[in-house]
Amino acid sequence: MHTLPSHAMRPLCLNPSLCSSRFPFFSFSIPIFHKFKNNPTIYKKSQKGPPFFSIRCCGSGSVTAKPSWELRRNRAAVQEPDEKVVALRQLFTKPGIGIDAYIIPSQDAHQSEFIAECYMRRAYISGFTGSAGTAIVTKDKAALWTDGRYFLQAEKQLNSSWKLMRAGNFGVPQASEWLTDVLAPGGRVGIDPFLFSYDAAEELKEVIYKKNLELVYLYDLNLVDEIWKESRPKPPNKPIRVHDLKYAGIDVVSKLSSLRAELVAAGSSAIVISMLDEVAWLLNLRGSDVPHSPVMYAYLIVEIDAAKLFVDDSKVTSEVMYHLKKAGVELRPYDSILSEIRRLAVEGAHLWLDTSSVNAAIVETYKAACDKYLMNRGSRGKTKNKQYFESDSLPVGPSGVYMQSPVSLAKALKNPSELEGMQNSHLSRDAAALAQFWCWLEEEIHKNMKLTEVDLADKLLEFRSKQDGFLDTSFDTISGSGANGAIIHYTPEAESCSVVDPNKLFLLDSGAQYVDGTTDITRTVHFGEPTAREKECFTRVLKGHIALDEAVFPENTPGFVLDAFARSALWKIGLDYRHGTGHGVGAALNVHEGPQSISFRYGNVTPLQKGMIVSNEPGYYEDHAFGIRIENLLCVQEINTPNRYGGIEYLGFEKLTFFPIQTKLVDLSLLSIEEMEWLNNYHSQVWEKVSPLLEGSARQWLWKNTRPITKQ
Amino acid sequence: MHTLPSHAMRPLCLNPSLCSSRFPFFSFSIPIFHKFKNNPTIYKKSQKGPPFFSIRCCGSGSVTAKPSWELRRNRAAVQEPDEKVVALRQLFTKPGIGIDAYIIPSQDAHQSEFIAECYMRRAYISGFTGSAGTAIVTKDKAALWTDGRYFLQAEKQLNSSWKLMRAGNFGVPQASEWLTDVLAPGGRVGIDPFLFSYDAAEELKEVIYKKNLELVYLYDLNLVDEIWKESRPKPPNKPIRVHDLKYAGIDVVSKLSSLRAELVAAGSSAIVISMLDEVAWLLNLRGSDVPHSPVMYAYLIVEIDAAKLFVDDSKVTSEVMYHLKKAGVELRPYDSILSEIRRLAVEGAHLWLDTSSVNAAIVETYKAACDKYLMNRGSRGKTKNKQYFESDSLPVGPSGVYMQSPVSLAKALKNPSELEGMQNSHLSRDAAALAQFWCWLEEEIHKNMKLTEVDLADKLLEFRSKQDGFLDTSFDTISGSGANGAIIHYTPEAESCSVVDPNKLFLLDSGAQYVDGTTDITRTVHFGEPTAREKECFTRVLKGHIALDEAVFPENTPGFVLDAFARSALWKIGLDYRHGTGHGVGAALNVHEGPQSISFRYGNVTPLQKGMIVSNEPGYYEDHAFGIRIENLLCVQEINTPNRYGGIEYLGFEKLTFFPIQTKLVDLSLLSIEEMEWLNNYHSQVWEKVSPLLEGSARQWLWKNTRPITKQ
Repeated sequence: MHTLPSHAMRPLCLNPSLCSSRFPFFSFSIPIFHKFKNNPTIYKKSQKGPPFFSIRCCGSGSVTAKPSWELRRNRAAVQEPDEKVVALRQLFTKPGIGIDAYIIPSQDAHQSEFIAECYMRRAYISGFTGSAGTAIVTKDKAALWTDGRYFLQAEKQLNSSWKLMRAGNFGVPQASEWLTDVLAPGGRVGIDPFLFSYDAAEELKEVIYKKNLELVYLYDLNLVDEIWKESRPKPPNKPIRVHDLKYAGIDVVSKLSSLRAELVAAGSSAIVISMLDEVAWLLNLRGSDVPHSPVMYAYLIVEIDAAKLFVDDSKVTSEVMYHLKKAGVELRPYDSILSEIRRLAVEGAHLWLDTSSVNAAIVETYKAACDKYLMNRGSRGKTKNKQYFESDSLPVGPSGVYMQSPVSLAKALKNPSELEGMQNSHLSRDAAALAQFWCWLEEEIHKNMKLTEVDLADKLLEFRSKQDGFLDTSFDTISGSGANGAIIHYTPEAESCSVVDPNKLFLLDSGAQYVDGTTDITRTVHFGEPTAREKECFTRVLKGHIALDEAVFPENTPGFVLDAFARSALWKIGLDYRHGTGHGVGAALNVHEGPQSISFRYGNVTPLQKGMIVSNEPGYYEDHAFGIRIENLLCVQEINTPNRYGGIEYLGFEKLTFFPIQTKLVDLSLLSIEEMEWLNNYHSQVWEKVSPLLEGSARQWLWKNTRPITKQ
Repeated sequence: MHTLPSHAMRPLCLNPSLCSSRFPFFSFSIPIFHKFKNNPTIYKKSQKGPPFFSIRCCGSGSVTAKPSWELRRNRAAVQEPDEKVVALRQLFTKPGIGIDAYIIPSQDAHQSEFIAECYMRRAYISGFTGSAGTAIVTKDKAALWTDGRYFLQAEKQLNSSWKLMRAGNFGVPQASEWLTDVLAPGGRVGIDPFLFSYDAAEELKEVIYKKNLELVYLYDLNLVDEIWKESRPKPPNKPIRVHDLKYAGIDVVSKLSSLRAELVAAGSSAIVISMLDEVAWLLNLRGSDVPHSPVMYAYLIVEIDAAKLFVDDSKVTSEVMYHLKKAGVELRPYDSILSEIRRLAVEGAHLWLDTSSVNAAIVETYKAACDKYLMNRGSRGKTKNKQYFESDSLPVGPSGVYMQSPVSLAKALKNPSELEGMQNSHLSRDAAALAQFWCWLEEEIHKNMKLTEVDLADKLLEFRSKQDGFLDTSFDTISGSGANGAIIHYTPEAESCSVVDPNKLFLLDSGAQYVDGTTDITRTVHFGEPTAREKECFTRVLKGHIALDEAVFPENTPGFVLDAFARSALWKIGLDYRHGTGHGVGAALNVHEGPQSISFRYGNVTPLQKGMIVSNEPGYYEDHAFGIRIENLLCVQEINTPNRYGGIEYLGFEKLTFFPIQTKLVDLSLLSIEEMEWLNNYHSQVWEKVSPLLEGSARQWLWKNTRPITKQ
């Protein structure tokens, strides 16, 4: 039973635009700046640590395969915080600044889930390295909001000049409330407008405006960077690589051409692409700028007859240069984005901006330039109206088209090459590495070896690293023994994490980035004798997993319609889980992507469509006892139903993940014959598909773990 | 397979406010005045004829138990339509009118599902008596919009001066488009503001305003009534009766007191209740003004220290008068509602108005009176602002509170007495009458008697009429043999309906109003040998019915979350049904009520709550072949689950309907063991509960029809 009160379940949303619109189904969110409306039942993702949509991983001691720089930073972060805060405050009164408070969020300029170290400004200024947190410094105060997952860590890391705001706890004010308490009316609150999506900044501006405070955009410098100076890590500069057409499936010229057709249809003449995975997908490029996601820091502007990539050109190899040139894409310095935006406005461009992801600096710059353009025209005597119209009522000046980026859906609908890459990476390599890992693990456990949760994550990485095309983990591995499996956002540290207990359930959620695909799989096992309770809960989670896997549904069905299928068996005995059931997954891209999802939240009405990839990951978490999750990736496909009522297509899922589900944990009395057949069929396919890749004990392990089960 | 194209599936919404907000889940709607947004999959209710939420029954030859006045009207309606239209046009130019077109909708002033004959103005003026239609008369044209269900009937009934607008057909303009085509810019379009909810009128106003037309409210007279004159039926005047406290459960004083507490909490000082079932429920009164619903035409205004019922006092017996007086409710003439609204505004009342149901005449009158009040205050020198605020920012003048009526939810949560009445009427009487009917029917069929669909409806009424406390059918009985069962909104006429074919499926959807409860049940049977196809479809509908019946879900779950449970088995083979799965049912009140529903449409986020009654009625309709529907009524109740994850309640359903489901139609190979057990348990309960009420052949019939089934 989960005993956390519901308000304590709302962790910090570092990235309001991710929380509220782009990825609304797997997001943690704490009402720091605003109360969230429309929350009939508060469920929260209680599983994966860092790599959740709205939670950026700052690396702090989480169970990661590459902990070196993170641990280094961890130690550095607690040094001399006072001096930093003092130095920051000194900037408040400088000419052109003149602020009474400065907000330091966790974001980068692209609303990324994983960010580069040089952008971890909140961790630098506060010393607190948890993935979720917002710092605010005023002339005499410094406060940091974080959620229940991080209270202990923040207590350790924050020094006495910082006040820890335990978000969600009774009586703890939201940041906007706190600001009005500590600032005099008329106070000026500074932000770096690159670090807030336009929608998030507008919402914040409105909230504090009501309290007589002014939000001030400081375009020209980030105050934390000013004091960070030479100790600030350099921006990542690993070379960009071309994502081979055999994996990408569609060449850049064709993608740009489709996008331009959408621009024309929407009445726009250019678009700013700011999400890093969208830039990478559109240009068939991959980068190494952030952990876990194969992307590079860049903006892309696509016009009807031009395309410009704003990127640090030291990362652009000659091969990439040639690749871009072929597609008519020019290079521009990363920092010149705003001047290009101004130029476009002056040229009268109707710019398509997805204000839920494009940062406030870009959108405000465009809007200001449009206003200026129109005023100039107006002052030339044509009209006094701010918006100038010709006789046919079409605006002749620049005007924005504010809609969801069309690249989001295009990227989600995988083409055959992308699907093939996803299948290959799952089958030929990830499943083999996993079999070797689990075989090794069971042997070690039976030898009574003491292995920590971090040891296991490291070992799994070792097996995966040996696979062809392996690049990185796709998120920080979640490796939780016993009660740790039930802790929301479990982030064990190498020094303090548990030894895996052979007499408890063990939950392992992990994934990899391969050159051709991205994986994400969770299995829960018991090394000894599970209790009846563990078996009942596991079996009901499995029933939910099967129900979703086998669902058939008419086209145009949003994911939330299917969510209850995965919960029904748990609901029957009064159990549930506080996270969504499925998220989108990129093809050799981000492990979490939109626009689709399968969740209890019904704000996301994006229909599930052929070629979309979603995870199927129901779970159950019993506080202080155990956590269970069973996760496969699925691809939406057409089902050849004997009827087609309404003349439409009926859709279902094809599995991408083939790996044994531990039958020892199944309570057969709770499984229907059909469900048993599903499990046996699945295991027979696993054996058939994965065994040819294995030999020796791993093959033996797979054989044992794919044997059919029967009632009695 | 359904071959109707989806656009042809959108019948006419006569009542935009019902369609769009109050009853959004079972509604037919055609975009006559506006396009509906947010319609990812167009499903439409394809079953019950007249008694659907947004479809008002005008009686036209539908299969009804009391067809006399309806058939009479049917014949009268086709006489002299030209003269009527000519007479109507002559009114356009009269002083104080001055319009270029007049819209005649089907509504009464209360957004009722069933209306009194004297308010059937659209049927009178056009001659078209179908339940769904909107007439518009201009100075030289007359047009009537209706949907595919009524094209044939409208062709027959409209004379040559009318143009039939086949709504949903390609190239047929919406009414607003048509108006802009046929009227010159600046044209004035008249409506009776009592016949549109405020929200619907506002939407219409906005749409035609964009096309340079003006919507004119004619408060003082309804132009159709002007020409209808003495031939217009008198308003209904049957006496109102007191709904016994033993059925109502809560006395009027307590209900008013709760309502007043809600008024205070909402910052309002009075409320206008305009939905007839809300007035009846709040005052523990019942009426006989319209068919099928035990309500009376009335408005109720509840103030903090007063309550006024606006009703024709000839319907008020001395018993009712005493009952009302005890509760502090005064009587006012029905027609004096607007002057009372004005008086309240002058007194500075903050009036709570549910603009989705309260008509435009009332809301506009209040708004105008508020404006006048505030202008008067303003001109006394206090301020020039229209809205006048004291220093503490609270409005001191009258101002409206525009929210959903609180009576809607209160009425939906049945108290123990209401539940007992519902159970008693279902069990002790409705089930007995149904058993007698089905026993009789099978005997007649086996004697090769030729019985029409209307004969059966009449016979069923005869059996029900003999039951204690029987008052009326709760909607027009839907009795469909073979292909008729698959026709959307089947409205057979006595002269032309089919003889029941013993070799085809027969669908019977019927219900009754008893003094203590309201019933609604559908059964589908075969009198001979069903085909494998019929059995497969029936069994999948049954699987859906069972899945919903057995659902357990956490509190705060809206009905749409459960809808897919009822469809899943059909979806697996590419089948579906184009209507919602469940609607609310009143306790000795309307057979369709909100605010809850179980439907694929997710606009209705009202959680299912303990004490709500919903129907469980999945179906399947194969064009030109057969229709299947299995409907029970359920009451939402708490389930005593072994766990309570999240510390909340888990809810499920308790059946109200106990009547055999024909096992001959079940394909056992498709039923799981658990589903078979459900069916056998249900039948065992049916026998146990219903057999004591029966004797002779009906008891014998029940015995035969409640025997358990076994595999093999």
